[in-house]
Amino acid sequence: MTTTSDRPLQLLKDRLATISDVSAAEAALDWDRQTYMPEGGVEGRAEQLAALRRLAHEILVSKETRSLLEVLDEPEPGSEDFALARLARRDFERAVRLPAELVAELTRASALAQPAWERARAASDWATFAPHLEKLMRLQRETAEHLGYEDHPYDALLDLYEPGSTKARVQQMFEELKTLLVPMIHEIGALPNEGRSRPLYGEFDEAKQEEFGRGVISDFGYDWGRGRLDRVVHPFCAPLGGPGDVRITARFDRGWLSPALFAILHEAGHALYEQGVTPSYSRSPLSGGTSMGVHESQSRLWENLVGRSRAFWSFYYPRLKETFPEPLGETDPETFYRAVNEARPSEIRVEADELTYNLHILLRFELEVALIEEDLSISDLPAAWDAKTEEYLDLTAENHAQGVLQDVHWAAGLVGYFPTYSIGNVLSAQFFEAATKAHPEIPEMMGRGDFEALLGWMRANVYRHGRRYYPDELVEMATGHPLDTKPYLRYLKSKFGELYELT
Amino acid sequence: MTTTSDRPLQLLKDRLATISDVSAAEAALDWDRQTYMPEGGVEGRAEQLAALRRLAHEILVSKETRSLLEVLDEPEPGSEDFALARLARRDFERAVRLPAELVAELTRASALAQPAWERARAASDWATFAPHLEKLMRLQRETAEHLGYEDHPYDALLDLYEPGSTKARVQQMFEELKTLLVPMIHEIGALPNEGRSRPLYGEFDEAKQEEFGRGVISDFGYDWGRGRLDRVVHPFCAPLGGPGDVRITARFDRGWLSPALFAILHEAGHALYEQGVTPSYSRSPLSGGTSMGVHESQSRLWENLVGRSRAFWSFYYPRLKETFPEPLGETDPETFYRAVNEARPSEIRVEADELTYNLHILLRFELEVALIEEDLSISDLPAAWDAKTEEYLDLTAENHAQGVLQDVHWAAGLVGYFPTYSIGNVLSAQFFEAATKAHPEIPEMMGRGDFEALLGWMRANVYRHGRRYYPDELVEMATGHPLDTKPYLRYLKSKFGELYELT
Repeated sequence: MTTTSDRPLQLLKDRLATISDVSAAEAALDWDRQTYMPEGGVEGRAEQLAALRRLAHEILVSKETRSLLEVLDEPEPGSEDFALARLARRDFERAVRLPAELVAELTRASALAQPAWERARAASDWATFAPHLEKLMRLQRETAEHLGYEDHPYDALLDLYEPGSTKARVQQMFEELKTLLVPMIHEIGALPNEGRSRPLYGEFDEAKQEEFGRGVISDFGYDWGRGRLDRVVHPFCAPLGGPGDVRITARFDRGWLSPALFAILHEAGHALYEQGVTPSYSRSPLSGGTSMGVHESQSRLWENLVGRSRAFWSFYYPRLKETFPEPLGETDPETFYRAVNEARPSEIRVEADELTYNLHILLRFELEVALIEEDLSISDLPAAWDAKTEEYLDLTAENHAQGVLQDVHWAAGLVGYFPTYSIGNVLSAQFFEAATKAHPEIPEMMGRGDFEALLGWMRANVYRHGRRYYPDELVEMATGHPLDTKPYLRYLKSKFGELYELT
Repeated sequence: MTTTSDRPLQLLKDRLATISDVSAAEAALDWDRQTYMPEGGVEGRAEQLAALRRLAHEILVSKETRSLLEVLDEPEPGSEDFALARLARRDFERAVRLPAELVAELTRASALAQPAWERARAASDWATFAPHLEKLMRLQRETAEHLGYEDHPYDALLDLYEPGSTKARVQQMFEELKTLLVPMIHEIGALPNEGRSRPLYGEFDEAKQEEFGRGVISDFGYDWGRGRLDRVVHPFCAPLGGPGDVRITARFDRGWLSPALFAILHEAGHALYEQGVTPSYSRSPLSGGTSMGVHESQSRLWENLVGRSRAFWSFYYPRLKETFPEPLGETDPETFYRAVNEARPSEIRVEADELTYNLHILLRFELEVALIEEDLSISDLPAAWDAKTEEYLDLTAENHAQGVLQDVHWAAGLVGYFPTYSIGNVLSAQFFEAATKAHPEIPEMMGRGDFEALLGWMRANVYRHGRRYYPDELVEMATGHPLDTKPYLRYLKSKFGELYELT
């Protein structure tokens, strides 16, 4: 029953629904841009995306939204309406705190920085990119000041992607990871390089790769009636407005099995999360994932804890071998399992293994914090990058393209984003351990290609809630603890200790 | 140079650009809905499309737009800005004249009528659809009253699709067509049915059909860097915001060559028009085609005057035969030319040949005029349909599914739309004759698969102008005459007179 005092809430919901619709349209246009749009559409599409973004922003920061938020009766704490009002306030506050000119300047600066970064990386030419980064970092510092923070400007930026997290907490997390990872990586690095990943290279028909990947994620529970898989240059998962349309993408390499296979499992992890959100949350701020870190926990869980496990390959390797009898003929299951888990420091983050991956993130986190603090100047950044690469990964950078210029994030205006990758890794193990505690049969089921118990636990404890709970609340509810590195460290230590016979 | 008095014009252009962006987004979402969207996206997509439609409407009818139109200095007559202001006023006036409740009621009524029509057609059950049509026609009469007209309510509806046209002019056009067509069709109908179209049936690999179609429209000048071809149930051309992204679609039947081949040529005709509009008109009301009739003239021109001509097949038939040596082995070029031009009254409009097609339209035009006039009641419509089918096509309707229920238009809320198909037919010949007068080598060039002169004339005289001129102005400028049935009648008489050896 709708009472008079429910009226502002209903009007607010209507406005938020329109914002969701426009944002979903924007996501669909961006998906199309990356999949099927012809070259000639580039300019027009950029205008369309900008127009939709602007309209969604205008509706959010309008006087009408402000009035509704002001007169709204506080919904019952813990209720869905409570969560909705809380998120609406959070989104509204952050949108109005940023002056329109600053947002425009940041958009313009990053639109210029991205092609400059592409050219700089191609030529391994730091000097032409440096002024762009100088400007972007200044704008990011301004952004942080406008958004506000308690302890550190970096907190304001991090909170955009990981609500509630802080620089101090991320630092603490990395301290705990470093203690185990750095010595382990040094120890493995000292072993002779056996080239374990060799079986992943050869001649692998792309259509067959795709068919195999589709089979696996169908078993995971990815619903093709509410999604699809297409080819792109940079894979991503595209939720196009609620759990009814959640698409994934992949990139194929006929000479190398890893990129497509693990991208499909990774993006399917994101998609399982989105497909599992309560349908009635659609067209509201409650839809979608609660943070980048929690989202990443699901891509990592299905890619790594499932897709690089011995149980998984005990079931799927015979099928893969049947699919590719020629290139895999000589490879036994254990050798293949070791191939997909080779740990070896390399310069490129996106190609890093589970063990070294977090050190790539740590390095970026420390550098972006120092840049925001102005404790590090842009001109000193390349040397600092190389020094940390040496310290954490025992590697000497070959050139800036492989070093400080390798990622698009900073050029794209993303500062405070990198840590969510490691938060995701940590949470993936924490969620997996909690699921396995509730259903000890999960590993054995995985060995039969049966993911029902695992998916069921994730749906019940994580997916269905969408953005209803903040990450801290969700993690605590689902696992009984706040974010905790111990399950992840246990997982890495046991897995790689065995794989490399470490003492 | 921008003077102070240019300011309202620039502000108006900015608003119109946003409306164009949002409409282009809507078109892209609709393209996706019909091509790649998974089943699960249906509900969400409907909401997104409705939201974009609503936002574009709100920006158009806003106080700000009204003020700008009021204070605008009249641009120099004949200039692009003059045309832009004229169109903006036209679009604004028509949008504000319709009460929001009427628009909403019409949208709702047609959303309900379409599934009802689908069910009714499947069961050939007129009675369940009749109340929907009753209501829709009442709403259409109201719409006409709000839009306003000089002579006849039908004029107001027709003007939505064909600016400047009237019921009286369409009636006159059909009178002229009927004089030739009705006796010709009777004469052909009296000849023994030779089943001329038989060569079009057989086993035609779909991928090869597509490849052949792609080759032909590449020769036409369709630019793949600004378009693409995808598969759908009901083919359409999708301009997604300016000439940079104009996609086409087709439906394939492996047992029948016609549907895909002629749909590709037809939709490519629409696309050539859109790809040829002056690029600087993008993001303004000047972009796109000037009317449904002129648009249809281009799809018909490339499909029929080119794609069903003897010159065309003299060049392409050997290639088609090479593509399909098995089913076409026994068929000589002349037999094939006669196959794609078989004229024979049939009940279904979308399968009709060039000669009988216009009588299908005439029948619908007369009936919808009578319904708007309330000169014909909904309950008498099926009998009136059948009587006209008998009169014009010598056919006795088998059932309502093949008769009065065959088209979706009325259920979709389109009244006044049908005549634009025949206007398109008439104009196709008028434009083609003018082009051939300017470049007498066009038919001979077509026989070498060279369409440069034809496309060049169309671009220079029709396409580049977009919506700058109203249809009457454009036709007069391009051909030296107002809309004129004579070229079309000459074309039909000569082509079918020869094909059927008529006296």
